[in-house]
Amino acid sequence: MVHLGQKRRGAVQGECYPGIEPIHCAVLSNTKGLYLIMTTNQLDNLDVDISQMRPEFETQLANLVAIPTISSDPRRTADIQRGVEFAAELLANSGFTTRIVSTAGNPVVCGKLIINPSWPTVTFYNHLDVQPVDPSEWQTDPFNLTIKGDRYFGRGTVDDKGPALAILMAVQYVREQNVPLNFTCIWEFEEEVGSAHFEDFIKAEQATLATDSVLVADTVWQAAGRPAISYGLRGLVSFELTLQTGTSDVHSGLAGGVARNPLGELAHIITECYDATTGHVNIPGFYDDVQPVTTAELNGFTASGFSATDFAAVHGFISMRISKDAEVLSRIMTEPSFEVHGLVGGYTGPGVKNIIPPTATAKLSARLVPNQDPVRIFNLIKNFIKERHPDIQMRMVDMCNPYLGETQGPYATAATDATKYAFGIAPVFVREGGSIGSVLTMSKHLKVPIMLLGLGLPEHGYHSVNENFDWLQAAGGIKLFVKYFTEIAKIQRPE
Amino acid sequence: MVHLGQKRRGAVQGECYPGIEPIHCAVLSNTKGLYLIMTTNQLDNLDVDISQMRPEFETQLANLVAIPTISSDPRRTADIQRGVEFAAELLANSGFTTRIVSTAGNPVVCGKLIINPSWPTVTFYNHLDVQPVDPSEWQTDPFNLTIKGDRYFGRGTVDDKGPALAILMAVQYVREQNVPLNFTCIWEFEEEVGSAHFEDFIKAEQATLATDSVLVADTVWQAAGRPAISYGLRGLVSFELTLQTGTSDVHSGLAGGVARNPLGELAHIITECYDATTGHVNIPGFYDDVQPVTTAELNGFTASGFSATDFAAVHGFISMRISKDAEVLSRIMTEPSFEVHGLVGGYTGPGVKNIIPPTATAKLSARLVPNQDPVRIFNLIKNFIKERHPDIQMRMVDMCNPYLGETQGPYATAATDATKYAFGIAPVFVREGGSIGSVLTMSKHLKVPIMLLGLGLPEHGYHSVNENFDWLQAAGGIKLFVKYFTEIAKIQRPE
Repeated sequence: MVHLGQKRRGAVQGECYPGIEPIHCAVLSNTKGLYLIMTTNQLDNLDVDISQMRPEFETQLANLVAIPTISSDPRRTADIQRGVEFAAELLANSGFTTRIVSTAGNPVVCGKLIINPSWPTVTFYNHLDVQPVDPSEWQTDPFNLTIKGDRYFGRGTVDDKGPALAILMAVQYVREQNVPLNFTCIWEFEEEVGSAHFEDFIKAEQATLATDSVLVADTVWQAAGRPAISYGLRGLVSFELTLQTGTSDVHSGLAGGVARNPLGELAHIITECYDATTGHVNIPGFYDDVQPVTTAELNGFTASGFSATDFAAVHGFISMRISKDAEVLSRIMTEPSFEVHGLVGGYTGPGVKNIIPPTATAKLSARLVPNQDPVRIFNLIKNFIKERHPDIQMRMVDMCNPYLGETQGPYATAATDATKYAFGIAPVFVREGGSIGSVLTMSKHLKVPIMLLGLGLPEHGYHSVNENFDWLQAAGGIKLFVKYFTEIAKIQRPE
Repeated sequence: MVHLGQKRRGAVQGECYPGIEPIHCAVLSNTKGLYLIMTTNQLDNLDVDISQMRPEFETQLANLVAIPTISSDPRRTADIQRGVEFAAELLANSGFTTRIVSTAGNPVVCGKLIINPSWPTVTFYNHLDVQPVDPSEWQTDPFNLTIKGDRYFGRGTVDDKGPALAILMAVQYVREQNVPLNFTCIWEFEEEVGSAHFEDFIKAEQATLATDSVLVADTVWQAAGRPAISYGLRGLVSFELTLQTGTSDVHSGLAGGVARNPLGELAHIITECYDATTGHVNIPGFYDDVQPVTTAELNGFTASGFSATDFAAVHGFISMRISKDAEVLSRIMTEPSFEVHGLVGGYTGPGVKNIIPPTATAKLSARLVPNQDPVRIFNLIKNFIKERHPDIQMRMVDMCNPYLGETQGPYATAATDATKYAFGIAPVFVREGGSIGSVLTMSKHLKVPIMLLGLGLPEHGYHSVNENFDWLQAAGGIKLFVKYFTEIAKIQRPE
């Protein structure tokens, strides 16, 4: 078996014209050698082959989008099941041995394509559940794929059904090319609700999931045309604060001034915890374990094509706490944050009803960065609040560690090369502001390098109305994954 | 026409045994004189006569309760109309000339019983609309009067249908006794939604509403057996604060730290405005115009039978900001307060959804005391907030001046005497923590003394589930009003 990348690079390195990528040099400079002819043919064919995949990609994306796999909606259990079965069939049709693995929550679809046990194995992970929708806010039917030119509208198109299909098509392709690689597929159906049972699944299946590396495509570039590889994720600790001071609404004329007001007290506590104007967290020790970011990392972030103005426009922000590109990126990628997500209690209808509510609950979270520990942070917050307000009830809802992956080593190099090959430009290494629990879980239990090669763009509207994906990112993604697979097939296992 | 009170008091004053009321002395000491025989007969008969009114009282209370006149519920428009028509019929059956006066909101039922234009006129005011109900929380059907012993359960029994009936029965009685008094009735159907059109009604009808005094029965004693006459009401300014920083929910992983959080900022603003733990308002100038309360007033309050422990129990408070009886009363009756009624915006479902909401609204109000001006207070609050947070939108929802009525003069004396006569104990003069907009409106436009002779008890559950009234308060109330009418019939008009 010939590994084209090795030969190609060996043959042409050093002959390149400045500013022209080696892969193009290969074609320009030498078309005679057997390996190089193969290389050239494969390169030539790949773009054509990918363009020929388009009808199949669109058909299968439409099939996936048509199943409303909304994991947060208990009424969608049957749709989740339909989605699981369809996904298993899709894998089986690509030659995978598939299993639908039950968990205490939604099943996981697991596929194996083991051609030669001595070859390395790559595990690719996607999730096929989606965010809820409010159809009245959408310009198209969110569960009927609508194609406008190169763009695909529908819930799940970019998060994460489209990228999942792009990987699967790349797998089919390299399989046909006899690239010496085995594949394991993990398709989750609970990512959008916090992957509560994913760790149980990974632990239970650990023996069958031995792998050399993991590929995840569920991240977003900062700008179109500026590929980004995510190597860091923020962690999370989310919690509820509940204060009960009475048993029923009381008219403020009867008791105003004397009755405790749980909404007012929660507002006070929130304000003690953080300065909402600047975002600064006031809890002593909160920032203690934050790992400083290097200048090299920061330079990578700012090279990502990020624009704070575009960022504000994409998210619909009227104003932001800060507005300089580098500062915004650094804040999201490397700094912890504190958020109020909702306050429950009291009157929320039209006008004002003069009642003092008996109880109120604040829904809060903190995003964490390496090396903050969610349990330690939860306890810091809890102690800080409890010291001041002993009758507050505090309940942890969810937690997730921050994550830092590799920016160097053979997988990072393969990812860099594959991205350059597919999109014509070297990727930047960035971090994500969000948390992907499954990445943490796989990192912890599978103990192999994980590459986050996402295809999303800011304009795709992750989690938003009118979510969309596009063929340029899909086609580029297939090309990226084909190249990445061919590259990592050559990586020697550590002794 | 003989005014029994005058003669009785003249004849027997000075002959009383210590601790025994003059009215009883009269019966004990002298039964021969014509006036005194009449007096004694009337006194003897009144209790019997009132006891004979009970079946009619219960029948009509059941009829009134059966009509769900919930003014806050637009689906109850037909019920309001039924209530209006039934009320007009009730007045007509008592000899009143009735009119249903349209307003831009619900109609007002207006009745006149003018026997002799040279006699003084008393105007009695009640409201026949009621608070909404959640039937699942009630132990009985809220719109089917349930009689348990002396107690009447049903929405509106104490607030304000029962007291309205007690006045009407007293009017019928004194009319039969030829007490020289004319009557005007004002029955409102929008009190529970802020009496938005009541001032328009009073202004439009001002010429037909000329009167010598007003009687309102819509207040609550501090304890059973301790009659209280309310002479003060707190004012109110209610408002909404809205902060919009974006256009849609954004995932906190994508923007947390950089995006403004309108809920967090509103919490911050609320905490700047007041200390929710103590209740102290931090806005400069807020307390400037608060009229100091006299020791005599405070002594009256503490003689009301108020118990902070009972107060907490009745309202279901687990704890309060303060707990000493006198301090609690003073706080409610004479001090302004600041309340958060609700915060709208963000995620309020189960668990925590990690979104940053684009907008949030806080529903707030301040209770005011003499001589705070709602408009001045609103502007103080607005300037305080706007200086710190220029992009906040602030909207006034409702306002009502504080009110201080008479504790001396002929009407206060008549009310005191009548209360003593009916309930065997002199009343205390107290203030209410709430606001009754209609009282302010009548005070402003009718320009006559207003007596607030309420019959509610803490255990009656104003505005609460299982609202109730009882025959002892109703019968005592009829007796009180009979006596009050006979007393005020003798008051000379000022030249």
